[in-house]
Amino acid sequence: MSAANRAVVAIGGGHGLAAGLDALRRLDVSPTAIVTTADDGGSTGRLRRDLGVIAPGDLRMALLALAEPGPLAAVTAHRFDRGELAGHALGNLLLVALAEQHGGDFVAALDTLAELLGCQGRVLPATDTPVDLVATAGGEQLRGQARITRSDARIDAVHLEPSDAPACPETLRALTGADAIVLGPGSLYTSVVAGLLVPEIARAVAGASAPVIYVANLRTQRGETAGLDLAAHVRVVAQAIHPRPLDTVLAHDGPIRREEDGDPDPAPVAGPVPDGLARTVQRVDLAAREADGSVGAGHDPDRLAQGLAAALALPVPPIVRV
Amino acid sequence: MSAANRAVVAIGGGHGLAAGLDALRRLDVSPTAIVTTADDGGSTGRLRRDLGVIAPGDLRMALLALAEPGPLAAVTAHRFDRGELAGHALGNLLLVALAEQHGGDFVAALDTLAELLGCQGRVLPATDTPVDLVATAGGEQLRGQARITRSDARIDAVHLEPSDAPACPETLRALTGADAIVLGPGSLYTSVVAGLLVPEIARAVAGASAPVIYVANLRTQRGETAGLDLAAHVRVVAQAIHPRPLDTVLAHDGPIRREEDGDPDPAPVAGPVPDGLARTVQRVDLAAREADGSVGAGHDPDRLAQGLAAALALPVPPIVRV
Repeated sequence: MSAANRAVVAIGGGHGLAAGLDALRRLDVSPTAIVTTADDGGSTGRLRRDLGVIAPGDLRMALLALAEPGPLAAVTAHRFDRGELAGHALGNLLLVALAEQHGGDFVAALDTLAELLGCQGRVLPATDTPVDLVATAGGEQLRGQARITRSDARIDAVHLEPSDAPACPETLRALTGADAIVLGPGSLYTSVVAGLLVPEIARAVAGASAPVIYVANLRTQRGETAGLDLAAHVRVVAQAIHPRPLDTVLAHDGPIRREEDGDPDPAPVAGPVPDGLARTVQRVDLAAREADGSVGAGHDPDRLAQGLAAALALPVPPIVRV
Repeated sequence: MSAANRAVVAIGGGHGLAAGLDALRRLDVSPTAIVTTADDGGSTGRLRRDLGVIAPGDLRMALLALAEPGPLAAVTAHRFDRGELAGHALGNLLLVALAEQHGGDFVAALDTLAELLGCQGRVLPATDTPVDLVATAGGEQLRGQARITRSDARIDAVHLEPSDAPACPETLRALTGADAIVLGPGSLYTSVVAGLLVPEIARAVAGASAPVIYVANLRTQRGETAGLDLAAHVRVVAQAIHPRPLDTVLAHDGPIRREEDGDPDPAPVAGPVPDGLARTVQRVDLAAREADGSVGAGHDPDRLAQGLAAALALPVPPIVRV
């Protein structure tokens, strides 16, 4: 199979998944995003409560990461800041309108918008059943991704309600046909594990012949992963796809951006990886840099593309934006 | 100048203007719509009050009349019917978002959306100043197009507030460069005359070397034009572009659809045209037909295209949809 045909499935949500897709777009692969749709905050939460739809926000971000730049992509990313529409991203409204036109079929709506946006690849929801993420944190149950993300308590466990939401058939087909599966980067529980909490998806990843690559975060997140080292991150992900080990852990090795509020977090996600959880650990500098050379908050798409190319045994692309 | 280069400017609003554009699209001409933006009802009114923008609804309808059919056109026409978005047309939100991205420039937003929709031709607002239509009807002053349209009183006069809103420079350029100017069809006061109430537009039409064609309505409208015959319609339009006469009046000659509520309206817009107001009167059957052969409410785009072709001295296209 030629590199041009290499089907790479990325599972996650939010800015982390978008960064991973932005990196994959730089490689000669055909990416498919499998997006967790448990978010219930902001524009997404309002649309979910109003219309009973799955969360559109992370789907929109994934589409935009794969889109051809141009006026339709720009307006899809536009967020209103005044009046009754304040807070809504136009792309969320566009996606929901397309789904209504397709009789509630979000996969058809996503394929239509992907074509309009000239996307390289495809974006699919993990499940098209509306689900809520529920976390146990600090001895409490927190219901809803927005509330979990706001909490300062470290997460002990998460589950979806309903816990048996079926995966979309297209999503399972993408996993079966994958040449490689990429988990993360992104919020450990609310993005990466959330996508794997759909039982059929966890089983498909666990049973897939394709290698599984986990892209770890650069830094811990206040609350959600406070104090967790790389081993702890890998343990949580490995547990979600039990009993298969990870093939590659792609971890950051370099400076991180710290905040200036005296909080011990963020700390580097670093340290050894316990035997048996991953076949290979690749450590490279993955952090973005600001224009002034200082360390940025997220992954640099070119550095991440280089790391993923190495993990996928693809030609390593040049860094063009550093 | 070849027919392919014939620049035809259509002035009006609402469903009438859209029907005219739908007809012009069937001819080998380059249409430009000049759209009245005084509407303040429904989705449009909410956006105007919230954001202080010009009325997007009639602009959206004009774009869709000129658009390439496809999924982007379909979703632009989608109207939400539930939750906080109920009543909003997605295309209105898209247009307002594009205008925000262009720093409030609606002409740039319209050109961008026209390109995305593959429009044949261009859509321009009469003025990019938010204006209100005010009518004198039954001895009362009615402020706002929505209120005027709801009223049962026949309109005696209309004006815009502010009355000196400047026309968009692109709009005036389109009129100067026009090979023909089409007024209507559409609501006499709230669509056709409303577009001509911008003083620079009335002056440009009055002074244009291009012939001016008025497409009369099929039927009277409850309230707005109750009891008015063709002569009365033509007088009102001629007054709006005084002192120039109309070159052609294209009037319906055939059956009309009547409502079944016992109201004397709608009545046919028929009868003689007083000397001096129009050089030529063309009378043809312009009414749409339903699938069962009964008379429809609006203009048939193919019949209207044939009528306009004759008025414009263009090859007459076949009727393909009767």
